[in-house]
Amino acid sequence: MTTVTVLGLGPMGHALAAAFIAADHPTTVWNRTPGKENGLDAAVAATAAEAITAGPLVIVCVRDYTVARSILDTDALKGRTLVNLSGGSPEQARAMAEWAAGHGIDYLDGVIMATTDAIGGPDAALFFSGPADVYETHRPTLAALGENVLYVGDSPGRAAAFDASLQDMLWTSMSGVIHMFALAKAEGIPAADIAEHAKALLGFFPAMIDLLAEQVTTENYPGDAGTLHATAATMDHILDAIRAQDLDNGVLSAARAEVRRAIDAGHGEDGFGRLAALP
Amino acid sequence: MTTVTVLGLGPMGHALAAAFIAADHPTTVWNRTPGKENGLDAAVAATAAEAITAGPLVIVCVRDYTVARSILDTDALKGRTLVNLSGGSPEQARAMAEWAAGHGIDYLDGVIMATTDAIGGPDAALFFSGPADVYETHRPTLAALGENVLYVGDSPGRAAAFDASLQDMLWTSMSGVIHMFALAKAEGIPAADIAEHAKALLGFFPAMIDLLAEQVTTENYPGDAGTLHATAATMDHILDAIRAQDLDNGVLSAARAEVRRAIDAGHGEDGFGRLAALP
Ligand SMILES: NC(=O)c1ccc[n+]([C@@H]2O[C@H](COP(=O)([O-])OP(=O)(O)OC[C@H]3O[C@@H](n4cnc5c(N)ncnc54)[C@H](OP(=O)(O)O)[C@@H]3O)[C@@H](O)[C@H]2O)c1
Ligand SMILES: NC(=O)c1ccc[n+]([C@@H]2O[C@H](COP(=O)([O-])OP(=O)(O)OC[C@H]3O[C@@H](n4cnc5c(N)ncnc54)[C@H](OP(=O)(O)O)[C@@H]3O)[C@@H](O)[C@H]2O)c1
Repeated sequence: MTTVTVLGLGPMGHALAAAFIAADHPTTVWNRTPGKENGLDAAVAATAAEAITAGPLVIVCVRDYTVARSILDTDALKGRTLVNLSGGSPEQARAMAEWAAGHGIDYLDGVIMATTDAIGGPDAALFFSGPADVYETHRPTLAALGENVLYVGDSPGRAAAFDASLQDMLWTSMSGVIHMFALAKAEGIPAADIAEHAKALLGFFPAMIDLLAEQVTTENYPGDAGTLHATAATMDHILDAIRAQDLDNGVLSAARAEVRRAIDAGHGEDGFGRLAALP
Repeated sequence: MTTVTVLGLGPMGHALAAAFIAADHPTTVWNRTPGKENGLDAAVAATAAEAITAGPLVIVCVRDYTVARSILDTDALKGRTLVNLSGGSPEQARAMAEWAAGHGIDYLDGVIMATTDAIGGPDAALFFSGPADVYETHRPTLAALGENVLYVGDSPGRAAAFDASLQDMLWTSMSGVIHMFALAKAEGIPAADIAEHAKALLGFFPAMIDLLAEQVTTENYPGDAGTLHATAATMDHILDAIRAQDLDNGVLSAARAEVRRAIDAGHGEDGFGRLAALP
């Protein structure tokens, strides 16, 4: 069993360490603020450098890339594999990969699509990118973190790019859910009632995602399943309903503005996928 | 079989008429521009007033409420039931219900959550609101329009309120899907690849909707499944990723601004549901 180092014992770092330990990896941990190793059957190092030298594989999971860089000892890391699981942008991942290469450190960048309680289980998805051979070496160990551990390519920013794209969909959608509840509430509709219908509506999402994926892939945006003109009319009805309740919806207004831009550019009879190609 | 009148033979009015005919209802149609009755085994009236007098149940499905009002003959409608299926806001539905009551017209307001090709089939959902006895009288006839025909209450604006709330979620989410594709494309990720993961992510939506519904219902917004501070950090990572690709995302920026308002109001440790209660 590969010995693993985990730097950072916030909620997520703690969960990662627990998953490695549950999979019988000898685990060494370090955290800036001491005493966060509660419940972990791990060796506790006094410094980050000491923790790093415990084994060949070092996981860092702290607030962000800047913090990660600030705690990493390049001398200690030389010749080992560093896996970053702190959240950030593809740009930051690429910069960190360059930095690591410059110091003779093998580097994988990873993202966690899961909450802490899902780590190690069937609902945890983690994406990794970086050199394929480095990933292959540590794949069996990283597999302890969840049942959906996926390698997405050697370009170091790719995992973060998958993450940012999916999180964009996720949080924009969650914003839509919240605005649905706010309008329903103003109209006297209980949240549980509208939630049932919202969940039913989700059943149509996979087909819509596939349709839009095809439009984006082919760069061909037929309007036969709905034109941007029709979308604009629907959005206006919703915005009327919102304003009539003295609510605010900057999110839908911004979406409406994008549709307007596309229509102004002459694409009113195109399908919704056209928006992905707006300059 | 109840005789049905359909006013408006745009794509949707045509589909509605076809569904009534398929269910063996004698059907009379009218459209402003003649010649739109192709393929319909219906009586074609020369005027809207003539069409209205054909039977007890009149369906109007035109561009919007203003157009609907402009073609409706109140003398002809007196004592009959008018069902509006033109799209609009709850406010407009309430106004039309008042107008109808003032002219001795029984009125139901309906919304169609379906595309034209789904009408009459298992994927068509239609919501109706208005007097329960009027709905009961015409329920068997309206059932021809789809397998999910639902009465949501006697308040006339309720169907439109359900519709506006659900459409808000739908179109905001679709905007998130489009931005996901745009960012993925800029990062060199094929749409089909990211679409697969997006569909997998949808599996978590029902639980998230239920969680937010509970927060909204109880007006209690625990942050243990994720705080607004954490959401803000995630959104900032996404926005960094977007800006690094010289893309624009007014939609997510607007969502981020709402999170900022909530944090500024002291709710940073609350869950996402708090946003539904923002002033
Ligand atoms: N929690 C989740 O559900 C989740 C899901 C997906 C991804 N992630 C990602 O996982 C990473 C860790 O998240 P988290 O939930 O554990 O909480 P967090 O608040 O993002 O990070 C806490 C960790 O960062 C450390 N830290 C912060 N500032 C530091 C500094 N200046 N110097 C040294 N250490 C510092 C903390 O040490 P102290 O204890 O000393 O403060 C602690 O170990 C984040 O990048 C997040 O985006 C989290
Ligand atoms: N299509 C869908 O998938 C869908 C889904 C849900 C709800 N809806 C709702 O259904 C309604 C009808 O939609 P639609 O798809 O059939 O197309 P539409 O373009 O919204 O409406 C076309 C109909 O409106 C009539 N019309 C427009 N302006 C008029 C005027 N000034 N005077 C008289 N008639 C006028 C048209 O008559 P002419 O032929 O003479 O122009 C035609 O019958 C809309 O309110 C829409 O929101 C549609």
